[in-house]
Amino acid sequence: MESKEMPAVGGVLETSIYVDDLDRAIEFYGRVLGVSHMTLGDRGASFDFGPGSVLLIWRRGASARDNEDYPGGMIPGHDGSGPLHLAFKIPTDTYDAWKERLERLGIAVRSEVRWARGGRSLYFDDPEGHVLELATPGVWPNY
Amino acid sequence: MESKEMPAVGGVLETSIYVDDLDRAIEFYGRVLGVSHMTLGDRGASFDFGPGSVLLIWRRGASARDNEDYPGGMIPGHDGSGPLHLAFKIPTDTYDAWKERLERLGIAVRSEVRWARGGRSLYFDDPEGHVLELATPGVWPNY
Repeated sequence: MESKEMPAVGGVLETSIYVDDLDRAIEFYGRVLGVSHMTLGDRGASFDFGPGSVLLIWRRGASARDNEDYPGGMIPGHDGSGPLHLAFKIPTDTYDAWKERLERLGIAVRSEVRWARGGRSLYFDDPEGHVLELATPGVWPNY
Repeated sequence: MESKEMPAVGGVLETSIYVDDLDRAIEFYGRVLGVSHMTLGDRGASFDFGPGSVLLIWRRGASARDNEDYPGGMIPGHDGSGPLHLAFKIPTDTYDAWKERLERLGIAVRSEVRWARGGRSLYFDDPEGHVLELATPGVWPNY
């Protein structure tokens, strides 16, 4: 940390992944995680993961150019490839229910991890190979 | 949402980016955003963005293979490329201070956006071209 004048940065608000098939992603994240999209457009969709937590799922290539069309200002472009990784929070007492739910939905649990701090994680892939994790408290010093 | 038995998923816990130069990233995120790493290893580093919010910065390629070395279970591999996008939360009344801070540090503000809901964003790049955003409340229905 720097001086007292250092303004405070809060948590991560938006996380991005990139997919070939946005319709399939919307169906999967809705069916498996129970989340719905807040916005849906030509470039991608935004998903509500609770207060101050947004997953952006972009159509691959569609967000690569700077977007000059928004009246409030230019939105810089970005685009990614490869199987990315993100994790979502689940309460400790829902771990078994989540595992059963994934199995019931035919989603292969690729791995289960017990962390040194006591937390547990379930790993599975989304339809495009992004590596998803459901993690209970006890994984990090700040969680 | 599904039935009453649906276990609750919480917010995004972990977000990943991939870099060629981890030392440079650690220096940049520390100096510019004031965050420090919780862990640092051969594969990457984890950064504390406040309670339940973790940014994982991976050495490009180093996390691609499944990690069988952790005693608590296999950690699936992943790896990404391209300029990814993520956003961090800032309080509304720190917007101007953040803008001045970026300018003082010689970080080019690529764009400022005023969103329809009243929120504002500052966009800038990290040293590897990842598109970072500092966003005040009023950007999303859930923020």
